[in-house]
Amino acid sequence: MTTLIDSTIQQHQACIDACNKCMQACEECLSSCLKEPDVQARTHCISMLRDCADICSMASQWMSRGSMFAKQFCEMCAMICEACATDCEKFQDAHCQECATYCRKCAEECRKMVA
Amino acid sequence: MTTLIDSTIQQHQACIDACNKCMQACEECLSSCLKEPDVQARTHCISMLRDCADICSMASQWMSRGSMFAKQFCEMCAMICEACATDCEKFQDAHCQECATYCRKCAEECRKMVA
Amino acid sequence: MTTLIDSTIQQHQACIDACNKCMQACEECLSSCLKEPDVQARTHCISMLRDCADICSMASQWMSRGSMFAKQFCEMCAMICEACATDCEKFQDAHCQECATYCRKCAEECRKMVA
Amino acid sequence: MTTLIDSTIQQHQACIDACNKCMQACEECLSSCLKEPDVQARTHCISMLRDCADICSMASQWMSRGSMFAKQFCEMCAMICEACATDCEKFQDAHCQECATYCRKCAEECRKMVA
Repeated sequence: MTTLIDSTIQQHQACIDACNKCMQACEECLSSCLKEPDVQARTHCISMLRDCADICSMASQWMSRGSMFAKQFCEMCAMICEACATDCEKFQDAHCQECATYCRKCAEECRKMVA
Repeated sequence: MTTLIDSTIQQHQACIDACNKCMQACEECLSSCLKEPDVQARTHCISMLRDCADICSMASQWMSRGSMFAKQFCEMCAMICEACATDCEKFQDAHCQECATYCRKCAEECRKMVA
Repeated sequence: MTTLIDSTIQQHQACIDACNKCMQACEECLSSCLKEPDVQARTHCISMLRDCADICSMASQWMSRGSMFAKQFCEMCAMICEACATDCEKFQDAHCQECATYCRKCAEECRKMVA
Repeated sequence: MTTLIDSTIQQHQACIDACNKCMQACEECLSSCLKEPDVQARTHCISMLRDCADICSMASQWMSRGSMFAKQFCEMCAMICEACATDCEKFQDAHCQECATYCRKCAEECRKMVA
């Protein structure tokens, strides 16, 4: 019997998980950036994190529903994740460095999903 | 050193994961319900799944950011998950029965998080 | 003095308004489709409306924040709005015909915004 | 003949419009706050604006679909709008003062809708 979990694993589960993790990392990183003494230097990064969290969240939801636009959506998601990673990598604190790693991983899974 | 993952695990990780899983189950179940021959009988359930997927997605995002309204949000999420589970349980197919289980689990985690 | 309203009107206000109206039309149309006696024939349209409502909502939010990805996002929004309009036009009831009109208008505003 | 627009006007149109405007004002205000020289002093307000924009956006979407949870959702939306207004009012620039006005108006419409 095919169950919910089975059918999804055969499809996009790795990408859904990567999007969920990246959304979480971006939201956490944004909140952490707001508490840093050099927040003034991070405003571009904060704007990027805001977009990246939103698009990862919606990508995860659209893959879950089997949207006919999931591939196009993930293509844009990959592009935004890469841009966000590049911004986060400029800051040496743990939350930005980790967030960049989650962003790169998510971009990679999105590209695999599109391929 | 406290990293992103550490600090979150100490907080709401179980609830974030349950919300992500419940969102996914609801989106999948909705798409599966639309393909069933008795879709006419499922329209109330479909409307419920739509709301439940959305609120679980936002609850996960708000907990990740450490929102000051996360508890109130999860309280509402728990209420909607229970209502959605009650609707899904009426249908005997695997996707509805499984989805109901994810909804009950998510409601439970949301209540723990609020407590 | 430049106020919120002024600066937005000079930018993307027509497109934000069109996205808000299209989101509303799609959500209403989806709920109306679920109440039609031939809901079975409308499941593809319903899936389309779900995606279209979501992307219009996020496009409006991203334009409002002045996202650096607003143009790419609106490009995808235009594509989905056109596809949704094509689906809605197949049904003769008022809500589908009207929704198609809002979708075409939104696609047009998104293309103007991108240009 | 009842059309989309007619049926909505009879229901929640004023509240949907207020939520759309408040979402837009919050997103714009957040982006403007990030550009202010005293951004360090605004981080609490920025977090509030983030939540307020999200909840107004979803409230608008849920009212449009005629969600059975729209009233509970708008009740929470009113509470968050009031809190956001209180934060914004502390800053003397035009975008915060205006945003506070949109938040108060939205809270008022949400309370009317719930009543």
